Amino acid sequence: MKILIKDVLLDGSIRDIFINNGTIEEIGVNCTRPADKIINGKNKAALPSFINGHTHAAMTLFRGYADDMPLKSWLEEKIWPLEAKLTPEDVYWGAKLACLEMIKNGITVFNDMYWHWEATAQAASDMGIRGLISAVFIDMFDPKKSTEQIEQNIKLFELSKKYQPSVTFTFGPHAIYTVSKQSLEWIRDFSEKENILVHMHLAETANETGFSMEKYGLTPVEFLDSINLLSERYIGCHGCMLNEPDTRIIKDNKVKLVHVPVSNLKLSVDRIFPYVLMKTEGIPYCFGTDGCASNNHLDIIETMKFASLLAKFCSHDPTTLPAGETFDLATKTAANIFRLGSWEIKVGNAPDIILIDLARPEFVPNFDIYSDIVYASNGTVVDTVICMGKILMENRYVPGEEELMDKANKVARALVAR
Amino acid sequence: MKILIKDVLLDGSIRDIFINNGTIEEIGVNCTRPADKIINGKNKAALPSFINGHTHAAMTLFRGYADDMPLKSWLEEKIWPLEAKLTPEDVYWGAKLACLEMIKNGITVFNDMYWHWEATAQAASDMGIRGLISAVFIDMFDPKKSTEQIEQNIKLFELSKKYQPSVTFTFGPHAIYTVSKQSLEWIRDFSEKENILVHMHLAETANETGFSMEKYGLTPVEFLDSINLLSERYIGCHGCMLNEPDTRIIKDNKVKLVHVPVSNLKLSVDRIFPYVLMKTEGIPYCFGTDGCASNNHLDIIETMKFASLLAKFCSHDPTTLPAGETFDLATKTAANIFRLGSWEIKVGNAPDIILIDLARPEFVPNFDIYSDIVYASNGTVVDTVICMGKILMENRYVPGEEELMDKANKVARALVAR
Repeated sequence: MKILIKDVLLDGSIRDIFINNGTIEEIGVNCTRPADKIINGKNKAALPSFINGHTHAAMTLFRGYADDMPLKSWLEEKIWPLEAKLTPEDVYWGAKLACLEMIKNGITVFNDMYWHWEATAQAASDMGIRGLISAVFIDMFDPKKSTEQIEQNIKLFELSKKYQPSVTFTFGPHAIYTVSKQSLEWIRDFSEKENILVHMHLAETANETGFSMEKYGLTPVEFLDSINLLSERYIGCHGCMLNEPDTRIIKDNKVKLVHVPVSNLKLSVDRIFPYVLMKTEGIPYCFGTDGCASNNHLDIIETMKFASLLAKFCSHDPTTLPAGETFDLATKTAANIFRLGSWEIKVGNAPDIILIDLARPEFVPNFDIYSDIVYASNGTVVDTVICMGKILMENRYVPGEEELMDKANKVARALVAR
Repeated sequence: MKILIKDVLLDGSIRDIFINNGTIEEIGVNCTRPADKIINGKNKAALPSFINGHTHAAMTLFRGYADDMPLKSWLEEKIWPLEAKLTPEDVYWGAKLACLEMIKNGITVFNDMYWHWEATAQAASDMGIRGLISAVFIDMFDPKKSTEQIEQNIKLFELSKKYQPSVTFTFGPHAIYTVSKQSLEWIRDFSEKENILVHMHLAETANETGFSMEKYGLTPVEFLDSINLLSERYIGCHGCMLNEPDTRIIKDNKVKLVHVPVSNLKLSVDRIFPYVLMKTEGIPYCFGTDGCASNNHLDIIETMKFASLLAKFCSHDPTTLPAGETFDLATKTAANIFRLGSWEIKVGNAPDIILIDLARPEFVPNFDIYSDIVYASNGTVVDTVICMGKILMENRYVPGEEELMDKANKVARALVAR
């Protein structure tokens, strides 16, 4: 499909952008190439789309079902009992609802970890966005479960080929307190052989560190390093508890991180992600929303504002994590972490593209578009979404959205009532 | 004007609401009273409007002009030089832009402190929302300036009568480090005589506490108590540095507070508002956005999410400041602080009313509307705004908004270029 965006604001100038099957072939003025679709970009800005570095998509079904509770009773009394009842169809509709919400917020790529892998893969594929999707890998240190999980993951890896290019299979070892050393060692070897990303909760809570110290006599990062799981394929989510020695190990192993500030605050974690340390050491990280049970909103612009402002507060320095850097982490750096190629709107690149509606009070006077996006706006400023060369949303409308919301609503209510 | 809202979600049931000149006269089903305007409330929820407890409206003109800077150079090199150039016309258009943005975010009442009082009053009046408006009162301990400011405030108080009921005059002594004891004593007496609210920055930074300890040998709260300025009319904004003895004084004097979390984080204040102490002592407080130079967004739902999540993180307790309590503080408690009467949608009350659009992914499945509003949404979910019995926004459109944004944009750019 050939798309021509006319008269759009790009890097401070008004330009036309010509896209052919997702690849930007021309950026200029008065472009007259024939296109299947012409988009009027007046009063809009073109930007690369956002990437959600950590979520559990189908948990949209649990939004608002259990909030403001202590972590233990929240999990044991509310979340786990519901998850035990989940069917693949539930997950499919929950994940589709999440994809809709992400599209509406300008997100075209999400890094997921959840149950019923294929249901989420089908949802991402049907909605036309990119999912890096892992199955939750938990064996609770039971060798039998470990074997089952390994077999299951090999199957899913094979199955994932039919969902390309929308879906990329990744490993999702849940955390060091739920996955045995032998499973992690298998994941290490298979992920190296097949060049698969490894998506894991890492250093989220003091409890996790305590478990690791007790069982292995090492911090979570030291333990994972001791079994050589850490590599340029490893993506650690949360990272609240990381200390300086951990960070050196992370750097030496080219590990990447995902910062999940909204969820961390809502569940009142013990410490916040050490921005200044990451910046000093040059560790690549991006942002994640987490699932809707612990955020409850799949809006990465909102997450960016939380991240930038928390970084300033926690570092006692208002110059920490400025708007432009925050925007780059959520786009360029994230695309690098998830191996998506160059995520800038330049000829020859193939980033997903969003158009931002500038005709809104929050973009007046618009002295600095990155400041306005990070500090003054939210996901609803996204007007148009183009993913893998196809238009997913125009004028904030996604075809079929009413039916999707209606169905997901029914699925969620039936789940709770079961 | 008689307004009939049909089939709207109210407190969990579908109801009709009949409003006559701002007062709710009937809540029921199948209401057939004749109305000047019938609003279809299907797929919408009716709620009391939001109240912005602390802002500097016209600072919308500075949005994105200076961010990510140390406080001192931000003020001295960027904000103060621009403020020195401000004309009443600039303030009028900046405040009008702020009113537009607040209406779009469901805010119908704002508590303001800024230069060129009458320009802000005119803007609030022209836009049809309620402003509690104070002139910045600064004398820098200069008796001559004190006399000028007192004369000026007496004039403005008289002038304010012509802007009723839209505008209420309040006093705006800037802070203890910019206003002399003699001016504060005059404000104390005049505000008592005329029953005027006093709007002041209070206990925002460690610098302010340091100044107070050095000059008066007392904390800011202790100093204000020593001159009897504290009363049920006193509204202290920020309050980050308040300690336990301060809080007892605040309680004894029936003082109210405004918590301004987004601005506090962005400027990286030394400590955060002590929620748990306020809750324990039962001190009434509400939320403020602050001005657009230090937030940069007049969205009180966003502020509510920041407040609720920060409270959980800082108290190490995910049950702190739950969604329903957060919503009540931003509506019912705020209305009480600003003497607006009962701010609940009940027969006989006259709160301003907003309709929320529920046909959005963030309201699926909608198990709990307060959770969804505080944790999953933002100001753009507001579809309709009714203030003082008049419809200010319908289908997210405010008449004249394009021209207003265009003019404000030109004014801001001309100001910077002057």
